Amino acid sequence: MAEHAHIVTSFEDELRALDNKIAEMGGLAERLVAQSFDSLEQRDTTLAEQAIASDRAIDKHERELEEMAIAMIARRQPMALDLRQITTAMKIAGDLERVGDLAKNIAKRALAVAHEPRPKQLMGGIQHMTEIAQRQLKDVLDAFAMRDAEKAESVWRKDAQLDTMYNSLFRELLTYMMEDPRNIGLCTHLLFAAKNLERIGDHATNIAETTYYLVNGTQLAEDRPKGDTTSQTAIGER
Amino acid sequence: MAEHAHIVTSFEDELRALDNKIAEMGGLAERLVAQSFDSLEQRDTTLAEQAIASDRAIDKHERELEEMAIAMIARRQPMALDLRQITTAMKIAGDLERVGDLAKNIAKRALAVAHEPRPKQLMGGIQHMTEIAQRQLKDVLDAFAMRDAEKAESVWRKDAQLDTMYNSLFRELLTYMMEDPRNIGLCTHLLFAAKNLERIGDHATNIAETTYYLVNGTQLAEDRPKGDTTSQTAIGER
Repeated sequence: MAEHAHIVTSFEDELRALDNKIAEMGGLAERLVAQSFDSLEQRDTTLAEQAIASDRAIDKHERELEEMAIAMIARRQPMALDLRQITTAMKIAGDLERVGDLAKNIAKRALAVAHEPRPKQLMGGIQHMTEIAQRQLKDVLDAFAMRDAEKAESVWRKDAQLDTMYNSLFRELLTYMMEDPRNIGLCTHLLFAAKNLERIGDHATNIAETTYYLVNGTQLAEDRPKGDTTSQTAIGER
Repeated sequence: MAEHAHIVTSFEDELRALDNKIAEMGGLAERLVAQSFDSLEQRDTTLAEQAIASDRAIDKHERELEEMAIAMIARRQPMALDLRQITTAMKIAGDLERVGDLAKNIAKRALAVAHEPRPKQLMGGIQHMTEIAQRQLKDVLDAFAMRDAEKAESVWRKDAQLDTMYNSLFRELLTYMMEDPRNIGLCTHLLFAAKNLERIGDHATNIAETTYYLVNGTQLAEDRPKGDTTSQTAIGER
């Protein structure tokens, strides 16, 4: 009995270690998203370089979490909810690693356009997308930490908002390019930056689905609310 | 002894089942890449719809492979090479799932630009990138199937070629947009399509690294040969 209690406690400790790792990765990813936007907006190349470098820490955490998770599965042969706790941690770590990559790519673009002045209006759109992406990320990580399926579902529903913003920014950037070809270089980079933010939102949505599944053992839904329609949008009707 | 032999055989069978699943996913991913390009080039919306639908099969295979792999780890508690065989299969399945997503996105763009005529020269660039991405994918899946680390390394080295092509196509598309604003809509979609092909190449490179690690137990290298420099490229010097 004492032996059994000992094992149970230890498994709980290991699960907590996984959760802590996710929290740490999440904090790094949130900060990276903020830094990458700031470096883009303020044309701050030092900050951009810092953001790019800090992505490595997220990658390292992911590898460590994966090793921990696999060792736990092999050693404890967990079933049902216990196993789900481990596999969902791996999935979420994978999403956070991708968020880091996408934010890093924005910071690289910040370096590329550091010498070009940027129209306030366009940066406003990117800023708004960044804020929503950050909030989605923060809220979904809270939902996961609290095992709060309702909160996860609310994050999941809000992704459509980010997609709508991306659609309108996509059109705005294209219009801006058409008005003056000298905007094409900058706007192309901003287009990719906006797409990256939209994809960061998708990863928050993935984490919401994973959290919901962890808590309830059932899938949130077959199809997510998909609002980015730009890949199907014919632009350039003249 | 008979008991032991039975278990060993059965583990081998299970590993073979993982390999078969990877081969099946790889075949589907290769076909999806080809279909998505054909639908873009021939402005074939039916083919584009087919390509988009077939991505679901890849996703389903990935989920099944993951379940198989986790059950194997829990049931057999494999160590060293045996464990590596399972975890690498999961990683490769993850890469193939992303390849499917990226190819599907090209097919969606094919629908968006189905009614726009496309300049032969630009499509030539996309076609060339598609062919290389397909060959990289095919070669790396062969390398994995044969556990051929040398072949995997050769795929890994060739990724720079795809990156170089992407860089030059990126500039070409931007020039084309600057020449005539009416090209901006089409070229933006082609820009994202080219980026997707470059990223498909990155996933082939990931699979090459995973295969190398599976065979040799050591990492191929700290940093991969990174040739896509467009995110750092300031365009629009006038």
